[in-house]
Amino acid sequence: MSDSRETPEDAPQVDELTPPDRTLMGPGPSDVHPRVLRAMSTPLVGHLDPSFIEIMDEVQELMRYTFRTDNRWTIPVSGTGSASMEAAIGNLVEPGDTMLVPTNGYFGGRMASMARRAGGEVVEVDAPWGEPLDPADVEAAFNEHQPDVFGFVHAETSTGVLQPEVPELTSIAHEHDAYVIADCVTSLGGVELRVDDWDIDVAYSGPQKCLSCPPGASPLTLSDRAMDKVLDRETDPRSWYLDLSLLEGYWGDDRSYHHTAPITNVYAIREALRLVAEEGIENRWDRHLEVAGGLKAGLQDMGLEMNAPDEYWLPSLNAVKVPDGVDDAAVIDHLIEEYDLEIASGLGDLAGDIWRIGCMGYSARPKNVEYLLAALEDALAEQGQL
Amino acid sequence: MSDSRETPEDAPQVDELTPPDRTLMGPGPSDVHPRVLRAMSTPLVGHLDPSFIEIMDEVQELMRYTFRTDNRWTIPVSGTGSASMEAAIGNLVEPGDTMLVPTNGYFGGRMASMARRAGGEVVEVDAPWGEPLDPADVEAAFNEHQPDVFGFVHAETSTGVLQPEVPELTSIAHEHDAYVIADCVTSLGGVELRVDDWDIDVAYSGPQKCLSCPPGASPLTLSDRAMDKVLDRETDPRSWYLDLSLLEGYWGDDRSYHHTAPITNVYAIREALRLVAEEGIENRWDRHLEVAGGLKAGLQDMGLEMNAPDEYWLPSLNAVKVPDGVDDAAVIDHLIEEYDLEIASGLGDLAGDIWRIGCMGYSARPKNVEYLLAALEDALAEQGQL
Repeated sequence: MSDSRETPEDAPQVDELTPPDRTLMGPGPSDVHPRVLRAMSTPLVGHLDPSFIEIMDEVQELMRYTFRTDNRWTIPVSGTGSASMEAAIGNLVEPGDTMLVPTNGYFGGRMASMARRAGGEVVEVDAPWGEPLDPADVEAAFNEHQPDVFGFVHAETSTGVLQPEVPELTSIAHEHDAYVIADCVTSLGGVELRVDDWDIDVAYSGPQKCLSCPPGASPLTLSDRAMDKVLDRETDPRSWYLDLSLLEGYWGDDRSYHHTAPITNVYAIREALRLVAEEGIENRWDRHLEVAGGLKAGLQDMGLEMNAPDEYWLPSLNAVKVPDGVDDAAVIDHLIEEYDLEIASGLGDLAGDIWRIGCMGYSARPKNVEYLLAALEDALAEQGQL
Repeated sequence: MSDSRETPEDAPQVDELTPPDRTLMGPGPSDVHPRVLRAMSTPLVGHLDPSFIEIMDEVQELMRYTFRTDNRWTIPVSGTGSASMEAAIGNLVEPGDTMLVPTNGYFGGRMASMARRAGGEVVEVDAPWGEPLDPADVEAAFNEHQPDVFGFVHAETSTGVLQPEVPELTSIAHEHDAYVIADCVTSLGGVELRVDDWDIDVAYSGPQKCLSCPPGASPLTLSDRAMDKVLDRETDPRSWYLDLSLLEGYWGDDRSYHHTAPITNVYAIREALRLVAEEGIENRWDRHLEVAGGLKAGLQDMGLEMNAPDEYWLPSLNAVKVPDGVDDAAVIDHLIEEYDLEIASGLGDLAGDIWRIGCMGYSARPKNVEYLLAALEDALAEQGQL
């Protein structure tokens, strides 16, 4: 409350914002780079200001670089990662379309829910939680169901699994004239991802993972072929807010008003993507491999076991098995309370079985890894382990 | 680009963010208070961090105060104002429901589009652009169509019209067992609005108008009666991202993961709402009346005419008639180029006929008004007027 004025009696008394100083090594958000935080305190211009149009162009250019694509339709969606996910599925899937989704993690289930709400039918390609999809199973599912759209998760945040052989999956889909949507929430900017070379039609991501940007404006890219399907729809997408044919009016040549863009979040993702360009996208993938490799080695030295074998280990999200007799939640609480350090528990089929330790963006630094390993060692000692 | 590292050759070269220093007197965003900008550069905690749960509670308490409601279901929606609008309409309107929308401005048309996409039928109550709804017309529309949901715009940003007699409108709707959704995007925090006293079932707003907060997390409140309708739906809402029955799991007692909240935007709206509480909501309404009153008097002294008569003049958005022979766009360009000052042109039926001058939140200061009047006088002189 400011000193000289009197707060009215019925007004809530809420103190100044003083959140704890966390180190973020969970499944996201990751630690935000100071330059990105500073960008967020920049005074606003209007969302139709000529200077903002330039900023939008720059964000698109940087985002294309990061996705490794020349796709014209590359934009930040005005919401968190689930908004870019829904923009992808809700626009591409029309009533009557069939979408093939994976069962090997939490986010395949979310894809299914979104596809059904869009009016689509859902069919599944099976793999257990903690394993990637097998191209042979995808081929079989295509032969059985002839889906119009195929969604897969490039980097499964719930299981710490990286999907290998992406070009094989996309070529199966394209041989069947289907469109491919890739969930790249936990890969973009941290793990090798080549949208054009791998022939992915639509890819979406979130900013608060390997881009280390606060959530609020989320990357989405569509090929011309995918955008043609969206623009040729017979019925409107079921969301006005996420209707890409309307957003095209704002991000495309017209620059006409659709909704007020989250200006500050666009400033932030611009700065986060500038940091990607300065580092170089391939250097950045290498850094994640190296730093997360150090994390993995440190965990294994402590006697812990990774949930994913090395062939499909996901550097940005390390799923670690909880040893027998250890209370996973007590360890998490100890890290937060004693070390201001965030890691996360398992979700869904893996609840109680794993910890999820992020190594993303600005959090993917040797300093963070050393701190985490020391803190975790202490927490396990508290539990009578080690 | 940082000094010591070499940017890879194929990476885009984008300079540091240096937007112009605008004074924002358009239809939003308004100037953001320095304290809110500072809050946005606060390092993040996780969206499931115990400390963030406290912050969520505080935001809800402050938002209830600002809406003048005790509604439990009072939350910031993770997107800009159109997202809270779609959350309201997309959850309340079920397939088969009929929604009554107004024709007296731009945003009634948006309501209609969202209601149709939600699977509803749309019927209209007519009034010309630039005039409020007449309760007698609303009554007649209810008798003719028996709609399930009635939407109206409390403060029409496209016309500068304030809807008077709100309690009369809500009582007509309730006599017909309908639910009322109020668009309060340009009234919340600037113009008298009493959700509970006026018996409004659902109200939504945006943060970047009279709350002077960057867009990205948008106020929404629902009565228990409205939330019961949402929770009793026979089919899922068509958006997963905006499904209030799922969001209830995160903002309600469970605190379970739905999607990653836009943490920084929640920090920002908390600070913006703290400023409302410190000032006192009624004092804030008075300030808007007084400062915008000075703006209106100044415009009239210059020989300009307001588009709305005094009975339904909207202090937060002043629609001013463009005098004959004046090029409205040239004036807007002159203000931006010579004064770094944003105002806006008319939309839809009023394109070319009016300027829209905001007087919202932190922009509702005598200093801004004096600057605007001086700049506008110069711009009109350039046009050979005055």
